[in-house]
Formats: sequence, C-alpha cells, structure tokens
Amino acid sequence: MKIVAAKKLLKANDQIAAENRRRFASLGVYVVNLVGSPGCGKTTLLEGLFNQLGSQVRAAVIEGDIAGQIDADRMDRIGIPVVQINTEGMCHLDASMIAAASEGGLLRDVNLLLIENVGNLVCPAGYDLGESLRIVVLSIPEGDDKIVKYPAIFQRSQTLVITKTDVLPYCRFDVSRVRDDMRRLAPEADVFQVSALQGEGLPAIAQWLTAKQHTFLGTKA
Amino acid sequence: MKIVAAKKLLKANDQIAAENRRRFASLGVYVVNLVGSPGCGKTTLLEGLFNQLGSQVRAAVIEGDIAGQIDADRMDRIGIPVVQINTEGMCHLDASMIAAASEGGLLRDVNLLLIENVGNLVCPAGYDLGESLRIVVLSIPEGDDKIVKYPAIFQRSQTLVITKTDVLPYCRFDVSRVRDDMRRLAPEADVFQVSALQGEGLPAIAQWLTAKQHTFLGTKA
Repeated sequence: MKIVAAKKLLKANDQIAAENRRRFASLGVYVVNLVGSPGCGKTTLLEGLFNQLGSQVRAAVIEGDIAGQIDADRMDRIGIPVVQINTEGMCHLDASMIAAASEGGLLRDVNLLLIENVGNLVCPAGYDLGESLRIVVLSIPEGDDKIVKYPAIFQRSQTLVITKTDVLPYCRFDVSRVRDDMRRLAPEADVFQVSALQGEGLPAIAQWLTAKQHTFLGTKA
Repeated sequence: MKIVAAKKLLKANDQIAAENRRRFASLGVYVVNLVGSPGCGKTTLLEGLFNQLGSQVRAAVIEGDIAGQIDADRMDRIGIPVVQINTEGMCHLDASMIAAASEGGLLRDVNLLLIENVGNLVCPAGYDLGESLRIVVLSIPEGDDKIVKYPAIFQRSQTLVITKTDVLPYCRFDVSRVRDDMRRLAPEADVFQVSALQGEGLPAIAQWLTAKQHTFLGTKA
C-alpha cells in the first residue's frame, strides 16, 4: 500500500514537472536543479556564478529550505530575484512547489532559473522539477566515497561540480576515484572542480552554463 | 490522507522503538543514534572514539547506508562487530530495521551499541530507533547556518559534536554562533568540538560517553 501511494505521488509529480518544463520552454527560461548535501556549497557556488555570468544572462533563483530564508537573503544582497520555499520538514522540493513559486513575477525578463534544492543527497533524487539540467554538488570535505553510498542522485544528474578544492590538502579525497565512480554511473556527465571562495574554476563553469543555455534557447526559438 | 498515513507509520515506529528500548535495557546495552549530513565525519568519529574507549566498553555498530558496505568494512578493519543495513533508497533508519539488525549475535557481550544513521539532516529527525542518546554531528565545512536551516534534527538531539575543527582556519564558521543556536533549540545539550583525524577532543568525548554509559547501566542494574 505504502509503495503504491509513493508511486502515485511520483507519477503526479512527473505530470506537474512535464507541465513546468513546457511552460519554462515557452517562456524561454533555462532551468537548473542544483542538488547536494547540506553545506556542500550550493549557495556559494551560485554567488560565484552570478558574479561571472555576463549581462546577456538574466537569472532568477528559487531557494528550497526546511526553514528560514538565509539563502534567499544572500541572493537578495547580490540583486538576484529570488523566491524562498520553506518545505517545513519535507526533505526535497517537488514540481508543484516550483509551479507555485515560479508564478507571479519571478520569471519576468528572466532566461535562466536556478533552483537550489533542500540540502539532501537522498530525497531530491526521485523528484523531477521540470528542469533542463540537474547539477549535483559534492564538496571535498564530504569525502570521496559519496557516489558509491548515494548512487541514485549522482546517476540522475547530468553534471557533477566538485567544490571546496581549496581544502583538498587538508582532507582525504581522491579526485580520480570520484571521477571514475561518476563515469561508471553517469558516463555522459560533465565534471567540474571549483573553489568558489577563491574563484578558481568558476569562469569555466559560467562559460559552459552560458553555452548550454544558448543551445537550449536556440532550439526553442 | 498522506499525512494520516505518515502519522500512522510514525506511531508504529514509536511502538517498535519502545520495544527496542526495553530490550536494550534488559540486555544492558547503552545505545547511541549518530545522525548528521553525508560526509560530516560520523564514521571517522566512531573510529576515533573506539581508539579511545577502554576495555570495559565492549562496543558494536550498526551502519545505515543507502547502498554499499564501505562503513561496515571500516568497522571490521578495527575489529568492531558490525551489521550493515542498506536502506535501498530510504533516507533514514527506522526502529524495525534496528530490531532486525540487532537480533542474532550482534549484541552478545556488548554494552555499547552505536548506530550510524543514513547521512541526512532531515529525515532521521522524526524516527526514534530506541536509543538512549542521540548525537548530531556538524562539520566545520558545512557552515555555521545549519541549525537555523535544519532545526528539527538539532532540537531532537541531546548532544552536538562539531567535527573537522582542523579546517576551521580555511572555512567561514563562527563556532559561537553555532553554540548559541544550539542553546536556543536544545538548552540541555552537551556540545563538543573535535578533530577526529588529528585526535583533538576525542579523549573528552570518550570519557563523557563512558560516564553516560556507566550511569545508564548503573540505573538499570
């Protein structure tokens, strides 16, 4: 019974996600779903990317958190239009939350929407939000065994960003092991390394993301 | 309907947790539920603690992971009896898994059971496993805003261990902010700081844990 209910919920989510995807395409908005553990550096990565992206990119953000609006405040401070979702205990965003949050004025004059999911390496894996691209973030201090231990979320992401490379000298982390594990689970995935605090690796990601967005908008135009 | 079902599940879990608690008490086993984000250092903390605990403490471990047995292998290498639970996608351990894993020979001649939950700051919060003590682990690289963003799991823990203090110089982390936030949510909680890799802070935690265990076993004797 429980499994059937979960499957029904997932199916309902998939339908709303498909509607979101159609709507985002018709509005000309490229949508990225950013997932990763609590504290892996998702918000700092966003701040760093927005600092790099050129003026052709007009971005907005949806922040997902259990409670509070710390991350929305951070986006606000750098002038990025943002809606904060509080899931009040739920461990992931779902497509209906994104539908609600992206109504109203958030997507006006916007061509890139970044959705920062609840910090969690498990639950967001099964929930399509209607995004065009899912990026999973793994930080060096989390250790190099995470892909083996939490395979679903890595398998279902098209990009891996390894963050906090500045603390690599102080951590046990074999980058080549992580790249090998990712290649096994998601052979097509792009992999980047970045220290958002020191700015290393950000230009490459910003350039790549802009190219992805151009391709998407070009094919939709 | 969904919420009712979840409440029923939680109630069933609470009943099994209460049975676990009675059984652990009758066996003279002090049980700790260790929770925290993926990669916050739970397993390394366990390795460090076992290295410190005296021979009066006879420990066993239950490891909870989505997939794989990396952590169980680590316990095995240091000679700690261990059972690995694979939740196969589920984002937390529950009391029935612990009941099943602690049957058989695991608790023979054991007086301390450490349960390492699935790495997750959300889902394990609501699931009593029948433990006597819940320890939440927060690592320095995760950032000092986690208690505000994931309040439930901190509120429901009796101890906070701040790990990876060796990378404090390279991270944005205000220890006093975290201690203040924890005091607000869980005024009675003990708070420790540790670098398990460098061994700093481990003797204090081991001593404190042994004292907690003695008190528990004394009152049950």
